[in-house]
Amino acid sequence: MSRVAVMGSGSWGTAFSMVLSDAGQEVSMWARRDSVVAGINSEHRNPDYFADIDLAPTVIASTDPRAAMEGAEFVVMAVPSQTLRANLETWTIPGDAVVVSLAKGIELGTGLRASQIIEQVAGIEPDRVAVVTGPNLAREIAERQPSGSVVASTSLETAERLQAVCHTRRFRAYTNTDVIGCELGGATKNVIALAVGMAVGLGLGANATATVITRGLAESSRLGLALGADPYTFSGLAGLGDLVATCNSPLSRNRTFGEQLGRGHSVAEIAASTRQVAEGVKSCASILALAQRAGVEMPIVEAVKTVIDGTQTPPQMITSLMSRSAKAERY
Amino acid sequence: MSRVAVMGSGSWGTAFSMVLSDAGQEVSMWARRDSVVAGINSEHRNPDYFADIDLAPTVIASTDPRAAMEGAEFVVMAVPSQTLRANLETWTIPGDAVVVSLAKGIELGTGLRASQIIEQVAGIEPDRVAVVTGPNLAREIAERQPSGSVVASTSLETAERLQAVCHTRRFRAYTNTDVIGCELGGATKNVIALAVGMAVGLGLGANATATVITRGLAESSRLGLALGADPYTFSGLAGLGDLVATCNSPLSRNRTFGEQLGRGHSVAEIAASTRQVAEGVKSCASILALAQRAGVEMPIVEAVKTVIDGTQTPPQMITSLMSRSAKAERY
Repeated sequence: MSRVAVMGSGSWGTAFSMVLSDAGQEVSMWARRDSVVAGINSEHRNPDYFADIDLAPTVIASTDPRAAMEGAEFVVMAVPSQTLRANLETWTIPGDAVVVSLAKGIELGTGLRASQIIEQVAGIEPDRVAVVTGPNLAREIAERQPSGSVVASTSLETAERLQAVCHTRRFRAYTNTDVIGCELGGATKNVIALAVGMAVGLGLGANATATVITRGLAESSRLGLALGADPYTFSGLAGLGDLVATCNSPLSRNRTFGEQLGRGHSVAEIAASTRQVAEGVKSCASILALAQRAGVEMPIVEAVKTVIDGTQTPPQMITSLMSRSAKAERY
Repeated sequence: MSRVAVMGSGSWGTAFSMVLSDAGQEVSMWARRDSVVAGINSEHRNPDYFADIDLAPTVIASTDPRAAMEGAEFVVMAVPSQTLRANLETWTIPGDAVVVSLAKGIELGTGLRASQIIEQVAGIEPDRVAVVTGPNLAREIAERQPSGSVVASTSLETAERLQAVCHTRRFRAYTNTDVIGCELGGATKNVIALAVGMAVGLGLGANATATVITRGLAESSRLGLALGADPYTFSGLAGLGDLVATCNSPLSRNRTFGEQLGRGHSVAEIAASTRQVAEGVKSCASILALAQRAGVEMPIVEAVKTVIDGTQTPPQMITSLMSRSAKAERY
């Protein structure tokens, strides 16, 4: 049995805590609010997420980050990618813990991936940093639906240690050492899911959405190759798998946000009605900036950004994507 | 303007005739039945498929294969893969025509792909053989919904000639020279779609279906690599694109057939109620035989075959797939 701290009590952090306790680990969660900590410690439920599903009695929570991390062999970062830096600046990670990121995003301004922020801000060596990614819709994981996931670290030993603490019959964890590809796959898929959602909202069919998924993954893979990733990662669970799950599920915020855009609503209208902005809306700019610096063409990400910026409507976006000249499939 | 013969008047042959006439070609279709020929020539509709959508008046039909092929620069094989050989044995292809396959299947008994049957039976050189594949649900193509497709030939010149006759604003044709990968992608996707359908029929969610799609594509790609294909083809429209469109659409026979299996119906019951058997039901055996000869492990195809053969139920199949040991993502 290992002691694992899960820093954050949002939907994915809560679901991953269930995976860890199912796999036999002792989990201590950090939550910002007293009501969440009280719910977890006394009712064994997170009142904010999956309040209909019991947590194991061994999952305990605290509002004190130091207490939550005490004695942890693994510290799981379950906070949004845009607040990860601020949290890390105030936390002291136990000396030899492996730090695990659940975040899927690229930091605005810096263009950094979550693992880079962890290395930079907390001063952790890359071989003690890992990420969990793949087709991981949190609600389905919390319901113990089967899924395949990826645990990645530049150190295979670290990836295998993490695999050993989170692999269950329902949550199948595959190791990978391509952290760059795994993180880029998770970040770009949010933007591609916005494009797929727009196509769906415009009434287009399965051929069109499959084409956007395929070409979107191809441009993500080109970005990855330019930034040192293994292009095969994009064909795996962290690329294709995560993208397909996100694009097909009504539980996905990015896909749903895109669908509303396709139906003619503005970014502001959708944000106001859902009280949250989908990750891809924020990260399309940082991903495009990364691509431009690397000299990689990402026509779908670029097209999504024009809709977010309000310079093109979704029908104009689809028309301009479709009017690109015919060419060979790989170029 | 080129003269193109479309040999067959099923759903995909009819939809592809519309693409060709939209692209400005003169199309002559071969149909077995007088009623279909009469419908096309006098009403400009195929009474059996998309009877609600007009064909161009320039599309003509005949029950005489020789008349349909006369003067054709391209002869498109739009007959099922299991009857392709018998048809080719009775037809005389015009001397310098490019022969194009629309078939997605592996011949039972021989394990041959459609292009190999064309080369073998009609004695056509590989550089005059091409295939069309990708996310091509026929009903959506007939409705002029946008989609991306692949035109493949070992000769890039032939692929580009075919691209020039079928590329339209709505039907975007990309060239590829990996015929093996394109045909294997089209054939294996039917079997993977059965597995995905079963998962859906069993009530599993988007994480699980995305995992089956990803792992299914990985094993298809391993088969392709062993048989001389370019593994990148499987990440493109002929692999991933076709697979995702098939798995997501209620229009797909294989996905729907799998869903019925997942709900507990037998192969015989479903075949009786739909009056047709999905392609993957037939081709899982020939694909598995190809894999075994090549020494490639294809656990999902193998698992689907056990359900088709009646030696496992869909819940047993999913359980046995999920209980394979944890490993690295690429092995």
